[in-house]
Amino acid sequence: MLNSADERLAARLPEGVLRDVAPAYLDEPRDRWKGTAGLVAAPRDADEVAAVVRACADARVPIVPRGGGTGLVAGQVLPDGALPLILSMERMTAIRAIHPDENVVIAEAGVTLQSLRDAAADVGRLFPLSLAAQGTAQIGGCLAVNAGGVNVLRYGNTRALCLGIEAVMPDGSVIRSLPRLRKDNTGYSIRDLLIGAEGTLGIITAASLVMEAIPASTGTALMAVEGPEAALELLSRAQARMAGCVSAFELISGQGMRFLAETMPQVRLPFAEPPEWMVLIDVGLPEGLEAASALENLFIEAAEAGLVDDGLIAQSEQQAADFWNVRESIPEANRKIGAVASHDISLPLSEVAGFIEEAGAQLADRNVRVNCFGHLGDGNLHYNLFPAEGRSRADYDDQRAGLSRLVHELAVARGGSFSAEHGVGRLKVGDLERWGDPARLAAMRAIKSALDPLGIMNPGAVLRA
Amino acid sequence: MLNSADERLAARLPEGVLRDVAPAYLDEPRDRWKGTAGLVAAPRDADEVAAVVRACADARVPIVPRGGGTGLVAGQVLPDGALPLILSMERMTAIRAIHPDENVVIAEAGVTLQSLRDAAADVGRLFPLSLAAQGTAQIGGCLAVNAGGVNVLRYGNTRALCLGIEAVMPDGSVIRSLPRLRKDNTGYSIRDLLIGAEGTLGIITAASLVMEAIPASTGTALMAVEGPEAALELLSRAQARMAGCVSAFELISGQGMRFLAETMPQVRLPFAEPPEWMVLIDVGLPEGLEAASALENLFIEAAEAGLVDDGLIAQSEQQAADFWNVRESIPEANRKIGAVASHDISLPLSEVAGFIEEAGAQLADRNVRVNCFGHLGDGNLHYNLFPAEGRSRADYDDQRAGLSRLVHELAVARGGSFSAEHGVGRLKVGDLERWGDPARLAAMRAIKSALDPLGIMNPGAVLRA
Repeated sequence: MLNSADERLAARLPEGVLRDVAPAYLDEPRDRWKGTAGLVAAPRDADEVAAVVRACADARVPIVPRGGGTGLVAGQVLPDGALPLILSMERMTAIRAIHPDENVVIAEAGVTLQSLRDAAADVGRLFPLSLAAQGTAQIGGCLAVNAGGVNVLRYGNTRALCLGIEAVMPDGSVIRSLPRLRKDNTGYSIRDLLIGAEGTLGIITAASLVMEAIPASTGTALMAVEGPEAALELLSRAQARMAGCVSAFELISGQGMRFLAETMPQVRLPFAEPPEWMVLIDVGLPEGLEAASALENLFIEAAEAGLVDDGLIAQSEQQAADFWNVRESIPEANRKIGAVASHDISLPLSEVAGFIEEAGAQLADRNVRVNCFGHLGDGNLHYNLFPAEGRSRADYDDQRAGLSRLVHELAVARGGSFSAEHGVGRLKVGDLERWGDPARLAAMRAIKSALDPLGIMNPGAVLRA
Repeated sequence: MLNSADERLAARLPEGVLRDVAPAYLDEPRDRWKGTAGLVAAPRDADEVAAVVRACADARVPIVPRGGGTGLVAGQVLPDGALPLILSMERMTAIRAIHPDENVVIAEAGVTLQSLRDAAADVGRLFPLSLAAQGTAQIGGCLAVNAGGVNVLRYGNTRALCLGIEAVMPDGSVIRSLPRLRKDNTGYSIRDLLIGAEGTLGIITAASLVMEAIPASTGTALMAVEGPEAALELLSRAQARMAGCVSAFELISGQGMRFLAETMPQVRLPFAEPPEWMVLIDVGLPEGLEAASALENLFIEAAEAGLVDDGLIAQSEQQAADFWNVRESIPEANRKIGAVASHDISLPLSEVAGFIEEAGAQLADRNVRVNCFGHLGDGNLHYNLFPAEGRSRADYDDQRAGLSRLVHELAVARGGSFSAEHGVGRLKVGDLERWGDPARLAAMRAIKSALDPLGIMNPGAVLRA
């Protein structure tokens, strides 16, 4: 049994780490879960984090680590049971070192993704992780959930960008392993175990991370396609032409454009008549090529093959930003419409079109609108359901669970995943139990018991407490 | 205490899995360790592997998994204690599925790296892992040690190429998780824990792996450079020009060329006068560029900057193969000379030149010849020591341990690693204990105890038994 964080625990914490239990520490972006807290602590370095963890371990008090709070699976809020100590990384915001000649940056967990991208840009490098919440999301949280985003196609998930971590383990010991090395095969990858463990096995306090060369020529295009199958054929041709230099390949649906027109008229929409499906493509090419010409050549080839109907190639950085603004505004438009149920699924690429067709058919008589968009190049769809016109979210309260179950079942049946890039959190613990490989789950539970025998680290996230 | 594999155990194994205990199962390439075995089993599928593991668990018999046997750290041989059962993957050689439209291939552990590369090439794709032993090395072994090789710079280590695994755990349970997904954030990455665990936490029996687009234009060059620092400046300029499309950047020393001339006169050497340092560069570029021209432009820029003295750009595939033959023959020449001590270290890129200078100075009075070569783009040096002319390996028997300790100490002091791409095996258990982060080591031991409480899985590798 765990105890609530209280004044006695507060008295045992390092001086000056406590914060007021403000409402912002108890929220998650979708307002479906409400957190609780006995205390909020914001340590300044790994040693203070370790002291807080040891105090909580002694007192048997649950710890909920908190980064930017932008997670979408309720990993950052503990809604019931003993009142936790919220461990906020807000004061660990140093970029400890940046090595442009090594393409390595060492950042504390509380650095926002945008700050990290800016720091890399300042030394002429790219930190490639990019997602809509990057102004608020912190790198520690991105590591905790192995965040994805729009550039995974070329540069990989957060995991692929991490060379090493500093982390506080559940017993208060500190791993200090921040190598600036591309190769370091010296035993079990505890780094990769903590990445994606959502704060249930330890707390990442800093990381050494990969930067990339900025491509000599970058370009952006929007292309209207017949459907997802044509889009993926377009991607395959693009990769063959561009030697894998396609960095983003995003799907946008007509429904997404209609939601934008309805809720965010200030967003400038491309194409007079919004196509039913379009893709947003980013490429980054070597010297000697013009990205805009390369995209034009791709468009010509694709048009001849009947894959694309229409296309716009950005002629300026502003126009590229406008195209991206369309894509990045869709989640906001979705919020304004109000989703019945949101999904973050992934599929084998050759199953994407079949899934969209089958799911559409199965949902036809459920009286919902589907906005299917996302990172098509990664097979990652945000397959979100909205009320039919004239109806409200509340009308679907007793359908929501069944609808999500249906979407997840269809994805899993095709070899897909019920969580592509957001993680498990508390929202999808049941999904993991239902669809997770039993032997893998047993190994996960054994590791959780071995590393966190008291069960204080983010209890109830990923695995049932 | 563990028991030796014997006739009673043999009687409990699945029919037909046993093999003769041939000498080849007891070898490792450097002939420094001699394995033992009570039985050799070669199961045909994961269920048979599981049956073997369960039988060994019941009988408390150690298991040593064996792939191609090319590992260089003695992970594949158990030299003392209870006689193990050698679990050979030689009959699990199926490529179960290949999906060129998804860039995914699913292969059993016993498939050789060369077969995997050929299978990908047959469908117009690249399986990017490449190393000198690829004709014999098996993908299961490559996963077990997280093998590196020559294309890590662009495509990552083996870990980066793996999407999922089928694996038999120490209790005989089978993880069957072979997703064809780029994004799948559903709990702890047991995959990444088993990758690099060198068979001490379970046995990988199959994997789903990433393929890549074949670049439209590929090219190879040899450039003579002033030294490692100039070489790394050249790499930085190459990456900036080529948008990260440099796939190999190998260092070759004059000593390596002299060893080649001495022991393998059939290898055609470039340059009439071998330079003291040169780099071998591979690039793979998008359509619209000619790799040979791009390399020529790079050479011109580098020559103007005083970084390169001389250069050869391959004008045909044959010439590119000849260049690579020089590089790939160096390990064989080394074997013919007979190394006093071999090292597989990595360094932060900006520490490479300083390390080479410092190590050279410290070794100046030790009467050894240094052949320093390897994957410079990854900061990964094979810093190998050879007898002075007229002396033999045996003359150094009482110096060997001290020389290795010196090299490793100098590397670690500069933020480097004592094992870049070969793993820990049994050879470097002491190094890991000496230099491994204590909290990370404690976590490793806790996980080992939790997943393999009987200690039967490759005992003595990575962690002391």
